[in-house]
Amino acid sequence: MSLDPVWWAGDGVGYIDQRRLPAALEQRTARSTAEVVEAIATLAVRGAPAIGIFGAYGVALTAQTLSPEDFAAAAARIRAARPTAVNLAWAVDRVLAAAPHYLREAEAIHAAQRASDRLIAQAALELFPPRGGVATHCNTGPLATGGDGTALGCIIAAHRAGRDVHVYVDETRPLLQGARLTAYELREAGVPATLIVDGAAALAMRAKGIALAIVGADRIARNGDAANKIGTYALAIAAKYHGIPFYVAAPCSTIDLRLASGTEIPIEERGPEEIRAFLAASAAPPEFPAYNPAFDVTPADLIAGIVTEAGIARAPYEESLPRHVRGAALSQVTSP
Amino acid sequence: MSLDPVWWAGDGVGYIDQRRLPAALEQRTARSTAEVVEAIATLAVRGAPAIGIFGAYGVALTAQTLSPEDFAAAAARIRAARPTAVNLAWAVDRVLAAAPHYLREAEAIHAAQRASDRLIAQAALELFPPRGGVATHCNTGPLATGGDGTALGCIIAAHRAGRDVHVYVDETRPLLQGARLTAYELREAGVPATLIVDGAAALAMRAKGIALAIVGADRIARNGDAANKIGTYALAIAAKYHGIPFYVAAPCSTIDLRLASGTEIPIEERGPEEIRAFLAASAAPPEFPAYNPAFDVTPADLIAGIVTEAGIARAPYEESLPRHVRGAALSQVTSP
Repeated sequence: MSLDPVWWAGDGVGYIDQRRLPAALEQRTARSTAEVVEAIATLAVRGAPAIGIFGAYGVALTAQTLSPEDFAAAAARIRAARPTAVNLAWAVDRVLAAAPHYLREAEAIHAAQRASDRLIAQAALELFPPRGGVATHCNTGPLATGGDGTALGCIIAAHRAGRDVHVYVDETRPLLQGARLTAYELREAGVPATLIVDGAAALAMRAKGIALAIVGADRIARNGDAANKIGTYALAIAAKYHGIPFYVAAPCSTIDLRLASGTEIPIEERGPEEIRAFLAASAAPPEFPAYNPAFDVTPADLIAGIVTEAGIARAPYEESLPRHVRGAALSQVTSP
Repeated sequence: MSLDPVWWAGDGVGYIDQRRLPAALEQRTARSTAEVVEAIATLAVRGAPAIGIFGAYGVALTAQTLSPEDFAAAAARIRAARPTAVNLAWAVDRVLAAAPHYLREAEAIHAAQRASDRLIAQAALELFPPRGGVATHCNTGPLATGGDGTALGCIIAAHRAGRDVHVYVDETRPLLQGARLTAYELREAGVPATLIVDGAAALAMRAKGIALAIVGADRIARNGDAANKIGTYALAIAAKYHGIPFYVAAPCSTIDLRLASGTEIPIEERGPEEIRAFLAASAAPPEFPAYNPAFDVTPADLIAGIVTEAGIARAPYEESLPRHVRGAALSQVTSP
């Protein structure tokens, strides 16, 4: 079964409604700018690279459906649908710069992401021991990128290369991308895995022979600080405490060299009802205050390396990341 | 509204069904040994001190309802209803030793717990700064002890003593005792508080001015290693990383001097469906493997102090904890 999360559908942008997984694999089509924005904002489409591709197709759709005078504002709405992942703004800007070849450029971004994912998985293979537990957080597989995935793509590739990996999957509250999506993708790929609550990752590191932690990212600052799904920072601290190397895997489109450190990364805060309730089942008292950051920033000193399509960047990241970005820019598929 | 979780009901043991909170405050009565065991095993009654008191009343009920030849085996079933919290075995043993005055001893244990909770809160007051965030995990309030609570009792007492505390409440997956019970009790007590997912505690420590972390315990080994609800260990590591003092508050009945370290504490593993689903709403794929330890052990070197009714024990715990246990044994209410 294809887990391609987004595609060009001729008269709209097709996507898997990831809110319904794993109960249902529902394919839908966004046929207006508003539907594109809503799919991103509600996490029907999520994963930093995937929302970049989806946003790029969304701009192509907007160019087809709106008058030139309304086009720029509509593209800006897509660009702002979620703030933390820089891939969305990056992809929208890139498609706009390719005017009038919007669709061709969106397809080029999609193809470049697929190529990046393969290169990232190749570069990460050396990080995997012959056998051992692997901790991960949130979802970074095919559903998140439109390719093979970033961190989860590395894990699946290591499994296919014969490494005896056993994945400990954080369920990833509040929206449970780990339980709903990563568990689903690992089962599709046949990779041995066990689901845990986020609070059990530290115990699993102590008790279950975890040798490696690897996660994705939504934005990486110049110094290597990496924003990713809330709970990543806690996982990185626990890895440090247990002497387990903690890696980030992300395409260079996730690296934002304009930002000196993670304190400059905008962190989306979502509604408290995501914590107070769960898939429509109420948990906490109604109206009880909740703090719901969608992401956190993992400081570079907790990150053993950042795997991109240009290889593994190591500290000092101010030197290694710009090299990666330049290398990727050269190697990426670009439209004529 | 009283939040007394357990009481003697004449012909049975009354309890609040904590699985229904906060949606409903439902009072029930266990009228047989089997119903006592089931209420403990399903977490209708939970919290280490509260299940000790409930088990003690359960033995008194069993003595009234069963023949002498069936009594010992039935009491043993109550004693084994959950393995990690030592309070249950401690209370059952104590009631059995008081034969035939079972009910009187159970009432004495209940009264001693109320007195202990007040002493613990008094001892902990010095740990609270004039203002600041306080992190906690799971539920350790009145519902957990039959008194004012342990860690949450300390927090509520500090609030009443004029400390400007703001509590960051871990929701505490998988059974959400933080979201369902601690949030409920904090609202009843009028303490400012914010609910977070467990994975956000590290970010809250970095971003929200948390000055203190305080939790309860289900069993404390002689060296100070403390078993508590899964996720506590991760919280302690995050506190260490941020230089935030991490305290445990528990009555001396939680201290098990027979165990040299936390590796000897039996950790209950519960069914994977608690993680795969959530209040009857399915999350992960059915049958996906899940690792569901109900507790973890926080090593003593992550614990700044252990607050008991005998004061604050500090490292080396091998020396301070036996002093606390002896002191508490002398001061506790005992039946004639």
